[in-house]
Amino acid sequence: MANKNVALTNLTGDKIYTEIIFKQVWGKAEAYQASNPQQKILMMAFGDTSQPLPATVTKALVDATHRLGDPQTYTGYEELTGNQALRQAICDSYYRQKLGIEINAEEVFIGDGAQSASVNLQELFAPDNIIAIQNPAYPSFREGTLLAGRPWVQLPCLEENDFIPKLPQEKVDIIYLCFPNNPTGAVATRKQLQGFVDYAKTHQAVIIFDAVYSPFISSPNIPRSIYEIEGATECAIEIGSFSKWANFTGLRVGWCVIPEALTINNTVPGELNHLWRIRNSIKFWGTANIAQYGAIATLSPAGQLECQEVVNYYLNNARLLRNGLEAAGLICFGGMDSPFVWVKAPLGLSSWLFFEKLLESTGIVGVPGCVFGSGGEGFLRLSALGQQEEIKVAVEHLAQFATRV
Amino acid sequence: MANKNVALTNLTGDKIYTEIIFKQVWGKAEAYQASNPQQKILMMAFGDTSQPLPATVTKALVDATHRLGDPQTYTGYEELTGNQALRQAICDSYYRQKLGIEINAEEVFIGDGAQSASVNLQELFAPDNIIAIQNPAYPSFREGTLLAGRPWVQLPCLEENDFIPKLPQEKVDIIYLCFPNNPTGAVATRKQLQGFVDYAKTHQAVIIFDAVYSPFISSPNIPRSIYEIEGATECAIEIGSFSKWANFTGLRVGWCVIPEALTINNTVPGELNHLWRIRNSIKFWGTANIAQYGAIATLSPAGQLECQEVVNYYLNNARLLRNGLEAAGLICFGGMDSPFVWVKAPLGLSSWLFFEKLLESTGIVGVPGCVFGSGGEGFLRLSALGQQEEIKVAVEHLAQFATRV
Repeated sequence: MANKNVALTNLTGDKIYTEIIFKQVWGKAEAYQASNPQQKILMMAFGDTSQPLPATVTKALVDATHRLGDPQTYTGYEELTGNQALRQAICDSYYRQKLGIEINAEEVFIGDGAQSASVNLQELFAPDNIIAIQNPAYPSFREGTLLAGRPWVQLPCLEENDFIPKLPQEKVDIIYLCFPNNPTGAVATRKQLQGFVDYAKTHQAVIIFDAVYSPFISSPNIPRSIYEIEGATECAIEIGSFSKWANFTGLRVGWCVIPEALTINNTVPGELNHLWRIRNSIKFWGTANIAQYGAIATLSPAGQLECQEVVNYYLNNARLLRNGLEAAGLICFGGMDSPFVWVKAPLGLSSWLFFEKLLESTGIVGVPGCVFGSGGEGFLRLSALGQQEEIKVAVEHLAQFATRV
Repeated sequence: MANKNVALTNLTGDKIYTEIIFKQVWGKAEAYQASNPQQKILMMAFGDTSQPLPATVTKALVDATHRLGDPQTYTGYEELTGNQALRQAICDSYYRQKLGIEINAEEVFIGDGAQSASVNLQELFAPDNIIAIQNPAYPSFREGTLLAGRPWVQLPCLEENDFIPKLPQEKVDIIYLCFPNNPTGAVATRKQLQGFVDYAKTHQAVIIFDAVYSPFISSPNIPRSIYEIEGATECAIEIGSFSKWANFTGLRVGWCVIPEALTINNTVPGELNHLWRIRNSIKFWGTANIAQYGAIATLSPAGQLECQEVVNYYLNNARLLRNGLEAAGLICFGGMDSPFVWVKAPLGLSSWLFFEKLLESTGIVGVPGCVFGSGGEGFLRLSALGQQEEIKVAVEHLAQFATRV
């Protein structure tokens, strides 16, 4: 019997939600470990970082601590939309210098990570707006949509279409796009993204572009920001994060850009930006100031070099892992412009059967692709964000897998 | 013409919202400063802390930084519900040792502050739930309710009832209570709180108890937690924060307790706690790990002593300020168990006229009480969270005010 006082029951019952699935993954890994105590579990399921904070960041955190501990230099609340110097550094060091894009610091909102921003941004839009979501996709897009009770459509990202979705067949209002993609690791070309921007402008839709993994792009001519696409400032919100390329998963700093030029139907320029500011003044007073000071350091010249080393380390992991998987006869996607390798299950195995087979023969723990949506069935996601030594052990173990498949 | 695509328009137009009012306060202060360059503006409007982080906290932050910068001790994502040691310290050092209350670490959720928790907790409940809000009250309660489009009723907190509301006259579903109160500084007795708990149990309502200022309570026999009241674990969620008594406003760490025993209508014990966990797994991945390590330090024996000094400093400020106001012939409330002094406008002046008069004669900037709701009309809130030197200057200037009123 439903309880009329409780709102979140649309997430209970047999709905897939990540919390439970990830616990299931963890539980199976632990059960395997318990019955195979001599085998080393190689945890590659979660997108958690393994490398230390860059030295410029730790220096910035220590300096910030001393400032906050000194009565002469203590500061309390940060600005509502985030530290001004950080917003400016994102505009200058990231968007202008790296990508040649002009973004104004007033268009940037600092937040506590890409997940919360991507889901909470739905609050800007009317409850009956139709949401389009890649399938497979980062689960929070779907789950946040379910939580809000909004109508949604799927954009299949399958091997047949190189994991790049077709344009929506119907009129939708919000389109989540994530490139480089989590989980598939696919990247979209300029032309493909232009198609989505044109669709959005024609249909007065808004693109929420999750660019969290864009510092991992190594393929040439792939846009790193939706704002490299003509017309995108009029229809797209972009989300960035320090989590993966600066090892900030624990520090919780991300950002979103809501351009002044963004309008839908009869909103005026700046209106959505203003409404998001108001929303945050009521529901979110920002992420830790000290973590924001650390984020500024990642955008300094020294910090950028150190973060590039972080990216190189993880991409090298991904290359080693991919080589090992391919040597074992497995078909892989991703891992070139993303720290995730998207592995096709051999012999038509389901995601979960492949998960179990790989675990049993190699100790490698991935995430069954079906967790990311029905379009992920028959795949497994492996994260290369771990330690290189673990990746090397995984590659050795994969040689055994080759002989067993 | 309304735009059907945009959701937050219920906050536009002539609705009061804090962002704008606070800007207005700031704007008037700046305008005054511009035309009176010789006069020192005494900013007592905002509840921002002015004192440095305690020494045990800065040590903890430096230690945490070194751990995060070292490959051997680096950690990524924290636990979804917050660092386990912090949740345990809240249960042991705060609830059990200080207040004699048994709370389980699984009932505690670490968040990024009291404001976001208090507003976001509404998401647990059905959209048509009726919300009861003190008037005056911390504005986010009302604004978060408006944002969600929920029905609400007011609980007047006026001089006539010592700023303690009567029980709701009708059946409501959620009751926000904040004690020590922001803005009035009023505290509720055990008996008064028991009345609300009994109401909640009878009417299957949930109390969201904002106890952010409870470390400031110096009056005897005043409950510091709603869980000191019999039956409260069955009907109340409590919100705490490190912001004001540990100078953490910038660091963003708070908590809420959702007891296992809490049920409404036919929910089962633990269900609301579980749903909040699921909600957070989709919409919020926690506050900065480093700030959480700092929070643990505040609960150590040395940290507790240092934080008590912080509280004493601000309460002494409040006492000095209150004395100065009373010497000037003004009637004051609060400031005994809270860092806020609630000043009655003399001569029946409106909040805004009193604001301007006080600014012009003394340079003191407060917040007009009407910002906190119609029940705050005729009052002004002054914060004692500033520097003692400023408070002393304010007291000197108030002597002038006495001669002018």
